[in-house]
Amino acid sequence: MPNPIDFHFDFSSPYSFLASEQIEPLAARHGRTVVFQPILLGVVFKASGSAPLTEQYGPKAKYSVHDFERSARFAGVRYRQPSKFPIGAVAASRAVLWLQQHQPDRANPFVHAVFRAFFQDDRDISDAAVVAQIAQSLGIDSAALMEGAQAPAIKDALRKRVEDAVALGVFGAPTIVVDGEVFWGNDRLPQIERWLASGPF
Amino acid sequence: MPNPIDFHFDFSSPYSFLASEQIEPLAARHGRTVVFQPILLGVVFKASGSAPLTEQYGPKAKYSVHDFERSARFAGVRYRQPSKFPIGAVAASRAVLWLQQHQPDRANPFVHAVFRAFFQDDRDISDAAVVAQIAQSLGIDSAALMEGAQAPAIKDALRKRVEDAVALGVFGAPTIVVDGEVFWGNDRLPQIERWLASGPF
Repeated sequence: MPNPIDFHFDFSSPYSFLASEQIEPLAARHGRTVVFQPILLGVVFKASGSAPLTEQYGPKAKYSVHDFERSARFAGVRYRQPSKFPIGAVAASRAVLWLQQHQPDRANPFVHAVFRAFFQDDRDISDAAVVAQIAQSLGIDSAALMEGAQAPAIKDALRKRVEDAVALGVFGAPTIVVDGEVFWGNDRLPQIERWLASGPF
Repeated sequence: MPNPIDFHFDFSSPYSFLASEQIEPLAARHGRTVVFQPILLGVVFKASGSAPLTEQYGPKAKYSVHDFERSARFAGVRYRQPSKFPIGAVAASRAVLWLQQHQPDRANPFVHAVFRAFFQDDRDISDAAVVAQIAQSLGIDSAALMEGAQAPAIKDALRKRVEDAVALGVFGAPTIVVDGEVFWGNDRLPQIERWLASGPF
């Protein structure tokens, strides 16, 4: 059984969203599955001394939004720049961890639903009530989920996951790890595809 | 006659080198030519508050060198991380401008030769004597070139070109402009190819 692909992401990262829409079909073409690993870029950026693209140098921030939208069209993914951006997605990230532990089959569909709510339907996924509604719409018991996601063990697990990502050298998102090889960015999907198809190059 | 593609680059930028090796065949497939526009990233980074990748946060710097090399293999371009890096390429950049004014047919081959000397053969292209040798090897009168490149008009032209790039919103290299549409990075070649093939998307 080949290793699953680790997909480190932040729900507030546009390029993570674009890659999240493509990584599972790509992985499946090569007999792989994907584990979505939520991280918190706010913490990562504190370690790396970076900042969200939209808060960087003016021309770069402006280009970035244009590029999010153009890259979405290029990938055939519907995209709308959220009106509240960036946001913190702690509640949604903890919910992912709880699902991975308790209802693993529902974790990946939940990740996609949260991402789409934010980047397609302009919903404020920093609001735990919105996260609960998204879970409910997937048939998940949202009361159990939101209570479980508040447990100290889940809070610790998310904290540890972010620390582990920083220790691994993660400095942005998405960071996609295939058999130990690290690829940063939605742009690297073609390299990942070749790596999966014909091995290390 | 369609517009040429403007390729803003710094001789010290690995992704500029990788893109420089691919942009002319790509342009030719769509009936376009390329004008290489030297800029000085040192000046651009002063405006944008940025720094060369290899001088950024440790894990990002380390990843970047790995990614330069892997991206080169992916593109089928021979690459060797220069032992002296980054460098300032003022003399070589001025020489490009002089050739564009006085021997325009030789400008693009000279750009490729300088890039390859640096990123394939580990030559120190910050040294004007090395730049002169490269010109000589292409059959260019290097004495005339190096003297011409010191003229105040050429110095002013390079300064103005960098200022114009900053004013245009350039914040990194390569920045490739197709009919007014701005694409940043070697990663954007696939989007440029689609833009040229089937128009704006």
